[in-house]
Amino acid sequence: MSKLWRVVIVGGGFGGLRAAQALRSELVDVTLIDRRNYHLFQPLLYQVATGSLSPGQISAPLRSVLSRQKNTRVLLGSVEDVAPDAKQVHLADGAVLPYDSLIVATGSQTSYFGHDEWQEWAPGLKSVEEATTIRHKILCAFEVAERISDPVQRHAWLTFVIVGAGPTGVELAGAIGEIARQTLKDDFRSICPEEAQIILLNGASRVLMPFPEDLAEKATRALAKLDVTVKCGAMVKDINKEGLTIEVDKHLDRIEARTVIWAGGTAASSLGRILACRTNAETDKGGRVKVKPDLTIPNYPDIYVIGDLASAVNADGKPLPSLAQVAMQGGIYAATAILRKVNDQPKLPPFHYSDKGSLAVIGRWAAVANAFGAHLSGLVAWIVWAFIHLTYIVTFQNRLLVFIQWAIQDLTFSRGARLITGAAPTDLNFNEEVAVNCSAQVVKAETVVVPH
Amino acid sequence: MSKLWRVVIVGGGFGGLRAAQALRSELVDVTLIDRRNYHLFQPLLYQVATGSLSPGQISAPLRSVLSRQKNTRVLLGSVEDVAPDAKQVHLADGAVLPYDSLIVATGSQTSYFGHDEWQEWAPGLKSVEEATTIRHKILCAFEVAERISDPVQRHAWLTFVIVGAGPTGVELAGAIGEIARQTLKDDFRSICPEEAQIILLNGASRVLMPFPEDLAEKATRALAKLDVTVKCGAMVKDINKEGLTIEVDKHLDRIEARTVIWAGGTAASSLGRILACRTNAETDKGGRVKVKPDLTIPNYPDIYVIGDLASAVNADGKPLPSLAQVAMQGGIYAATAILRKVNDQPKLPPFHYSDKGSLAVIGRWAAVANAFGAHLSGLVAWIVWAFIHLTYIVTFQNRLLVFIQWAIQDLTFSRGARLITGAAPTDLNFNEEVAVNCSAQVVKAETVVVPH
Repeated sequence: MSKLWRVVIVGGGFGGLRAAQALRSELVDVTLIDRRNYHLFQPLLYQVATGSLSPGQISAPLRSVLSRQKNTRVLLGSVEDVAPDAKQVHLADGAVLPYDSLIVATGSQTSYFGHDEWQEWAPGLKSVEEATTIRHKILCAFEVAERISDPVQRHAWLTFVIVGAGPTGVELAGAIGEIARQTLKDDFRSICPEEAQIILLNGASRVLMPFPEDLAEKATRALAKLDVTVKCGAMVKDINKEGLTIEVDKHLDRIEARTVIWAGGTAASSLGRILACRTNAETDKGGRVKVKPDLTIPNYPDIYVIGDLASAVNADGKPLPSLAQVAMQGGIYAATAILRKVNDQPKLPPFHYSDKGSLAVIGRWAAVANAFGAHLSGLVAWIVWAFIHLTYIVTFQNRLLVFIQWAIQDLTFSRGARLITGAAPTDLNFNEEVAVNCSAQVVKAETVVVPH
Repeated sequence: MSKLWRVVIVGGGFGGLRAAQALRSELVDVTLIDRRNYHLFQPLLYQVATGSLSPGQISAPLRSVLSRQKNTRVLLGSVEDVAPDAKQVHLADGAVLPYDSLIVATGSQTSYFGHDEWQEWAPGLKSVEEATTIRHKILCAFEVAERISDPVQRHAWLTFVIVGAGPTGVELAGAIGEIARQTLKDDFRSICPEEAQIILLNGASRVLMPFPEDLAEKATRALAKLDVTVKCGAMVKDINKEGLTIEVDKHLDRIEARTVIWAGGTAASSLGRILACRTNAETDKGGRVKVKPDLTIPNYPDIYVIGDLASAVNADGKPLPSLAQVAMQGGIYAATAILRKVNDQPKLPPFHYSDKGSLAVIGRWAAVANAFGAHLSGLVAWIVWAFIHLTYIVTFQNRLLVFIQWAIQDLTFSRGARLITGAAPTDLNFNEEVAVNCSAQVVKAETVVVPH
């Protein structure tokens, strides 16, 4: 072919990056577009949110990951629209990019199921910014509690609620449990961080629905050891600044909690609906684009949708789950299909996801794993988890550093990345309550206001 | 004594933290107040700004550093005022804290010498937030340049100006030189990062004024190897969005540069003037409080001012420089003086700063050091620098990690912490210029707008 086949990939997550890497070939010209300049290893984001790792340790600059792949360019930009008949993508800054094949892999975002107003009080965990917001909230809560003498208010500041008991929710609850019971144990003088109440809410009847029942039970026991209260069958009715209202067994219940984290659900990123609208494709109720067994959109054999953005049925008839593994295998599938087309080779058989198992970590040396055809738990599962996650972290440098940080942390119970950045806690809702709380005592300036 | 002697320390930097640690004694009750929950190892902040280290790696949570020291409490708060006769400090949230001895160590902040309007275009480097802002600016500049085809605009985006050639300015210039010449070498397709122009401006006649002349010359040569242009005797007249105007040899000169970093000067933090006003103490023109040879304020023998906030004359008659070493030694001096008083022991002799030497790093394995009575440069100086800095980093965990990160980085030229966080570059000034630049070409949507 005289002219190179132009492949545009939208999104540098697990699916898009893997597709770009699999397209290393002199026959294609690849452009990877992302709003961010880094690939984020999302399964470890909860460790950033809980102060174990720094954002830089779970991110790899897209340009440096792909710098040696000379047929590939990285473009920092936001795709706003797709013109499938003209074969172009439109960027927010007005730029227009033509393609011969398009891979859309923009993933998912946090969904509040129609209650976006909860976002202010219950951040989700999809981006580095959200992770540092959550870290900020958790650490500040202990700081504020240290300054408050009123036991009711103090209790509300020391109550942490995680909504959703999928892997992210379980991992967050476990990590906050460790912070309260171990990391901060000796750090305060007025409060006992062990007083902290950690509540994991779940709409379903048990935690970790995608896991087998025996592992879910083991996870619940591991959480109980960290004093995490698991409430199943609980539906969130309202979240505000003071706490949340839940419904359990048709009874309304109120939890006063200053820190609520949302791990309750995700929906497809907005490009999904735009793409579906332009191609007359269907979407499921989560906004994911329904694709054919070869991961293309009906009538548009040159547009692949992979990862969390796609609603697809596996070769074995089951719907594909939203997992990094599915996205990566989808990326490789789409890349291979494109290279076959360019090389005039026969088409691939339908996409088949090969399940390598699922994992969730609860705390130090405690995890559950459904892998290698076995149900693992405890230290064994933790080792499997650590090994697999380290293998997947993109750059060598990060892998070694993360490993050492974990080793030190698990031996010492310390957490290195405990910075409260951005608005100083003293500028936050701190003042208000402490001031209210203290004002009576401040009248006579002689008094020591800060509890000792 | 039946009642514990209450020591309040304001500021958890080098001086305040060292004072708190030296006050580990059953006879005193210590409260350390800081607006931040962490101690920041400021000499390495330039490495955060240039993507070598993550903020968490050069910070240690104050609470965990002091957790085993049971006579010490950490208070997250902002001190607004001091009542030296009532012996109280006032916090922003209304709380009032009495003291028997007070140590004020709130350090310095960036000073634009009356041109605070320059701050918007030329951030300083004193906090984690400023460091990530600078990192953001540097990395975005390359991203924007990659998208621009107009050579004049592109050149402005690839011009980096550092104002001030003290240690921070030299280290920043060297690190940006390395980013352009080595780290990003293969990362872009339209631009050559090596085209980047890095200019180090200096009002004085040579770089690194506090260093001996031969070392300054060696530093200039090392900078030249990284293609950093050093302009001495240059005064900044104006800074705006497009670049800056300087005066050299009475001639005005204009530099078009989208990235300007201010390492031009510091002044005492504002608590200095408030304290001086309340105690009738004098301040120097940088707002630093003039203290007696024992680091106390005249007529207030129980108020110590240490570190960058103090204007003091050393026992040998020379003014004390603004260095971490001076702050730490001052902290230990003040703590010892307080413990002597509590123990009814004789007073200490006047404070004497023992100069351990000064260091500046220019790049990979290149530094200058005036230490151990010798003038060192090159790899030897770099080793001294690395050793001393690692020794001073507060927690063991960070020390090991930073060391490994440096080792990997210096062997591979890669930089791990290259995240652009916060507002995505696509939401920044990116759009505007690129859009202007692209609009002519976008009229016909068929054109590939992005240069290839």
